[in-house]
Amino acid sequence: MERSLRARRPQREGRGPRRTGAIRQRAWRQPRLPYRPLEILSADQIEAIHLASLGVLETIGMKVLQAEARRLFEAAGADVDESSMVVRLDRGLVEETRKLAPSQFTLHARNPERALEVGGAFTFFSAVGGPAFACDLERGRHAGSYAELCDFLKLVQSLNVLHQEGGGPFEPLDLPEASRHLDTHYAQLTLMDKNWQPWGLGAERARDGLEMAAIAMGVAREELWRTPVFTCIINTNSPLMLDVPMAEGLIEMARHGQAVVITPFTLAGAMAPVTLAGALVQQNAEALAGIVLAQCVRPGAPVVYGAFTTNVDMRSGAPAFGTPEYVQAAQISGQLARRYGLPFRSSNVTTAHAVDAQAAYESEMALWGAITAHAHMVNHAAGWLGGGLTAGFEKLILDAELLQMMTAWLEPPAVDEASLGLEAIAEAGHGGHFFGTAHTLARYESAFYEPLLSDWDNYDNWRDRGSMDAATRANRIWKQLLAEYEQPAIDPAVDEALRDYVARRKGEIHGSSGGATA
Amino acid sequence: MERSLRARRPQREGRGPRRTGAIRQRAWRQPRLPYRPLEILSADQIEAIHLASLGVLETIGMKVLQAEARRLFEAAGADVDESSMVVRLDRGLVEETRKLAPSQFTLHARNPERALEVGGAFTFFSAVGGPAFACDLERGRHAGSYAELCDFLKLVQSLNVLHQEGGGPFEPLDLPEASRHLDTHYAQLTLMDKNWQPWGLGAERARDGLEMAAIAMGVAREELWRTPVFTCIINTNSPLMLDVPMAEGLIEMARHGQAVVITPFTLAGAMAPVTLAGALVQQNAEALAGIVLAQCVRPGAPVVYGAFTTNVDMRSGAPAFGTPEYVQAAQISGQLARRYGLPFRSSNVTTAHAVDAQAAYESEMALWGAITAHAHMVNHAAGWLGGGLTAGFEKLILDAELLQMMTAWLEPPAVDEASLGLEAIAEAGHGGHFFGTAHTLARYESAFYEPLLSDWDNYDNWRDRGSMDAATRANRIWKQLLAEYEQPAIDPAVDEALRDYVARRKGEIHGSSGGATA
Repeated sequence: MERSLRARRPQREGRGPRRTGAIRQRAWRQPRLPYRPLEILSADQIEAIHLASLGVLETIGMKVLQAEARRLFEAAGADVDESSMVVRLDRGLVEETRKLAPSQFTLHARNPERALEVGGAFTFFSAVGGPAFACDLERGRHAGSYAELCDFLKLVQSLNVLHQEGGGPFEPLDLPEASRHLDTHYAQLTLMDKNWQPWGLGAERARDGLEMAAIAMGVAREELWRTPVFTCIINTNSPLMLDVPMAEGLIEMARHGQAVVITPFTLAGAMAPVTLAGALVQQNAEALAGIVLAQCVRPGAPVVYGAFTTNVDMRSGAPAFGTPEYVQAAQISGQLARRYGLPFRSSNVTTAHAVDAQAAYESEMALWGAITAHAHMVNHAAGWLGGGLTAGFEKLILDAELLQMMTAWLEPPAVDEASLGLEAIAEAGHGGHFFGTAHTLARYESAFYEPLLSDWDNYDNWRDRGSMDAATRANRIWKQLLAEYEQPAIDPAVDEALRDYVARRKGEIHGSSGGATA
Repeated sequence: MERSLRARRPQREGRGPRRTGAIRQRAWRQPRLPYRPLEILSADQIEAIHLASLGVLETIGMKVLQAEARRLFEAAGADVDESSMVVRLDRGLVEETRKLAPSQFTLHARNPERALEVGGAFTFFSAVGGPAFACDLERGRHAGSYAELCDFLKLVQSLNVLHQEGGGPFEPLDLPEASRHLDTHYAQLTLMDKNWQPWGLGAERARDGLEMAAIAMGVAREELWRTPVFTCIINTNSPLMLDVPMAEGLIEMARHGQAVVITPFTLAGAMAPVTLAGALVQQNAEALAGIVLAQCVRPGAPVVYGAFTTNVDMRSGAPAFGTPEYVQAAQISGQLARRYGLPFRSSNVTTAHAVDAQAAYESEMALWGAITAHAHMVNHAAGWLGGGLTAGFEKLILDAELLQMMTAWLEPPAVDEASLGLEAIAEAGHGGHFFGTAHTLARYESAFYEPLLSDWDNYDNWRDRGSMDAATRANRIWKQLLAEYEQPAIDPAVDEALRDYVARRKGEIHGSSGGATA
């Protein structure tokens, strides 16, 4: 019982409903990680996983489907069996080679003020990338269009808490498959001035991303390594395989000094052992193999240790996300990445199909896992729904709120004479109130976190305004943000060069003169 | 982009919808806290808050409205000003006296297997207590009845993840106010065999709780100190006051060797300084004053350091819950309680009025705060809605899922030869699968967390079953749990003695012969 809650509830004079003006949000700022990470395994246990994964690479090895990748491994001293395409790496090679990767690097953006530090005491949040479908409250899950993709990118640009676009939120299914990456890149570069993710599947697409990024940065593609702009997600094909498109993407990106984020999808019970320790042994082996390959391509190329281990739903065999095992896997992965001194990537994921309580609690679990694991890059940090098959407009707003709250928590409170507030305590006295004290008045405006989505109004006001749940409010917020969107400026010559590139490449791909982007 | 999610999604053969049988949940078990707490302030900063709060008690002091409490303070050596009722405590007195309280104790229950350890490496979860209103999906927020209160208690009994009832989930407004605590206690004692919380407001009600608990435990009230059964929430009246009913409850409970949970409601910006450090100075001063008073009543009486600091919504002056500041306050409070070697209480709270995404994310924030702060007691751990004015049936189920997930996360994964899974990795081979490996088959049934509320089915199945959101599913679950409820056995003589006590006391209160409980 806690009856004082009822008895002593302060209320100010009434006020109007919220958000009649422009959407208020926290300012752009790359968050720091000021607290210790949460480590759930001992150093000995981490060492056991590390050593087991080295054993896997030595004895079982990786099956590498692309010939150039096998040649690069072989040139570095790996044992390559061409008939089976299996590459075995001895532990000395792995340990020496992985050390070539930097522990921190700078990721540039078209707007220099949107550059990001990757690694060290910094984290950043990336929007969802890769789903097949779009979803909003009115239409439910549906095939997304290029116009909707542009709307999604405008929201990603508008939300200050998102530091990076995630590689296209969903497929623009009204555009031809062979060239839609070009339209997507044009939108990423002109509707936004933040950092963005390319498509890492295949050499040709990777080069298109690199060319367009180079145009936007005003440099030659061959010089892009001086100002890395890409963290490119590379998924191994678990268990223990690397396919041709992923290998090509990895090689192309690493050759240009762009960061590859080696992320095994080690789904415990399906594509990895059913035990968390076993799944992490396999994740670690696959991640190390990819990291070694990147260093074989270009010693010193930036890499990120990617972790995506989760468990299946044992009733259906389908992946589950934001589970307790997922959180543990993220935290242990952070320990492994720190053991190697490498930047670490985790994610904000859920199995839920609606923007309901499940979506929120699974995302919170994943997010607390990522942040307490000291993830330097939180991929899919906003917008992911339905096990990653869907990108949701309302979910984007929900996640922006979760991320904003996390950034506020990541700012430790001041403890000094002024904040200890002894004068205010004396001024308020026994049973008094603090509303009117000088201490309060001086700090009133910015003392506390101001929510984007949460409704903190009392029950009667909330009911009288229609008993709107968080998903309904999120729907209103993204529409208002879209209405308030302002396109960032771009040098007309750069814009023209991008349009020319897209038109030329479309011509090559489709065998016609192509055409500029809508 | 993470296209492997789409390309390599394993699916088993179809299966029927879930939950056609009885509700499955994790077994009863008091969770341990195996990981390090998350400490967000330095030891020096904690010391600064500690010293400032000792200064507050020395110079400003507590206004104590009850005469016996002032006499107890005075007898211990405090400086008491009878005209202003202000009690000033020098730091030597505070520091010596608080050390008399134990750092860990056992809390007994009618069912000996439901006893709880309070403090040390243990935590436990208590159901919501104290709200005015009940809420469910069909009726919305409404005045609760005794029949509904009994239903709520049956659910608390049924949910294994709840270790303690919270002191009555809402007011049974169909019963007379003066005696409804007797009916509530009868329900707590007969519909449940778990530990439960009493009403701590006033000496008479406190004694009724003690008498009835003693009957159920088969001991005299004067002997109840040998087997403590109560953690009784005592709220100070912030700032720096202790009122008559709370002082009476504190004294009565401590006199009987029951644990008082001293919990200042230090609402930053209203009843406490607008700075978090200042609000915590005040919380700490008030908590220490209550802890000292309990030790003056009975040296060695168990106490719990309660923390409830949160911030106001600066637009309305009303309390906000589950905020970033709330999480920080919980984590710092845990540091303070550890500095004193005292058991620590935190809570799971939200401002949301609906069981929507906001309810889930604010509760998750509060819960991660509590658990990473090493709360030994998580009060209001399930069922709290709308800033504590409402207890919700669907929220109870949502929170049970959050708590179950947390308990699964609190069980560290095994790291040994069997779990490292090298044979399984070799058996599956490159690009193989793990479904059929011996390693998987041996662990299949219990490898992963099994959800209570989450729907992990694919989109088509979820849509075909009605696109039910988590709140709708929670509604079905609590109704099924209620249908499956089995009343725990009770000695008929004990039941009769409880009924006799209630009847006698109702007669005294209402001046008639009273009557047994419905």
